Amino acid sequence: MPLFRITVRRGRTPAQLRALADAIHEVAVRSFNVPEKDRFQIIEQREAHELFYDPDYMGVKRTDEIVFLQISAGKVRTTETKLNFYRDLAKSLEEQCGLAPDNLFVVINTSGAEDWSFGRGRAQMYQPSNPTLAAGE
Amino acid sequence: MPLFRITVRRGRTPAQLRALADAIHEVAVRSFNVPEKDRFQIIEQREAHELFYDPDYMGVKRTDEIVFLQISAGKVRTTETKLNFYRDLAKSLEEQCGLAPDNLFVVINTSGAEDWSFGRGRAQMYQPSNPTLAAGE
Amino acid sequence: MPLFRITVRRGRTPAQLRALADAIHEVAVRSFNVPEKDRFQIIEQREAHELFYDPDYMGVKRTDEIVFLQISAGKVRTTETKLNFYRDLAKSLEEQCGLAPDNLFVVINTSGAEDWSFGRGRAQMYQPSNPTLAAGE
Repeated sequence: MPLFRITVRRGRTPAQLRALADAIHEVAVRSFNVPEKDRFQIIEQREAHELFYDPDYMGVKRTDEIVFLQISAGKVRTTETKLNFYRDLAKSLEEQCGLAPDNLFVVINTSGAEDWSFGRGRAQMYQPSNPTLAAGE
Repeated sequence: MPLFRITVRRGRTPAQLRALADAIHEVAVRSFNVPEKDRFQIIEQREAHELFYDPDYMGVKRTDEIVFLQISAGKVRTTETKLNFYRDLAKSLEEQCGLAPDNLFVVINTSGAEDWSFGRGRAQMYQPSNPTLAAGE
Repeated sequence: MPLFRITVRRGRTPAQLRALADAIHEVAVRSFNVPEKDRFQIIEQREAHELFYDPDYMGVKRTDEIVFLQISAGKVRTTETKLNFYRDLAKSLEEQCGLAPDNLFVVINTSGAEDWSFGRGRAQMYQPSNPTLAAGE
């Protein structure tokens, strides 16, 4: 929580993929209120004929370096937090991985604290005594 | 926005996959209020032992041609729009790709305008002056 | 409805994957209000460099046997149902597949009855005469 799905065109080396995943997690910790040890990431590599993207929709220049980041989040976060996270993510991935900021596509989906189990058949984030707090911050 | 995930059994050619993705996008533009250039699609091919589906649940006859379409949407759409989209999609995929309408499985998931970044670290769809409009139509 | 995505490290045999998928469906029927024939599961196998998980976040001991279960649900379910489902799932996967309960990660995402088409271009779960009921139980 959250769970990150990172989808890219096949072509990066395992080391490059790890650097990308490392950088994403670092920003998540810094700007998305994710605990340091709360790291769960699935990388998905697609062939050329398995990935379609518009090269300039919204005035952004996309290439085959494109990174799709789908985030299943489990905390309600403010719009301000999200906007700051996008900015930090684009900046950091450029600095650390050489990713053009235009090549970063992000979508966040949020579900409740009771919708997550981190193992042992328990919903660790859910606190019945204060469900609002558990679902929120 | 939206982001389409198309999951199928491995077996179609790249040209057939492209035709399927093309047809889906065409219907999205026509019946799901998606701008022409707003095309983002991930195709996922699975082996026989990686895909389970019931062959006749709900009175529908499914085969290995089955197409799962998972849509991450970013606009609130009316139920009427969704119902019309399913109909148009089933009809068009049959006409253009020979897909039996029974073999089309769709699920839509909607998040807010502030949950999307199309690149450059910005949330292009989010308009702070009128968040309701931005999140809605 | 629901649609299950099962993500694992590559390494299990097809028979082991099937046993895992079978066991998950059995628990879904018993403890998650899923009809017996309502079985739709996508299995995703990832290489070592495509999957990152923390080995002990939340005091849970995770290994490369880890199973990520992402559930797209179409019915509103109570928290009690979810909590019971996690427990039953962890217990049953241990008994039937030898999966350590610590290695089960679950996240549920719920959308509405009108967000699903099981085929034929229809939204089978949506009942306009009583949308609340259709979306709920």
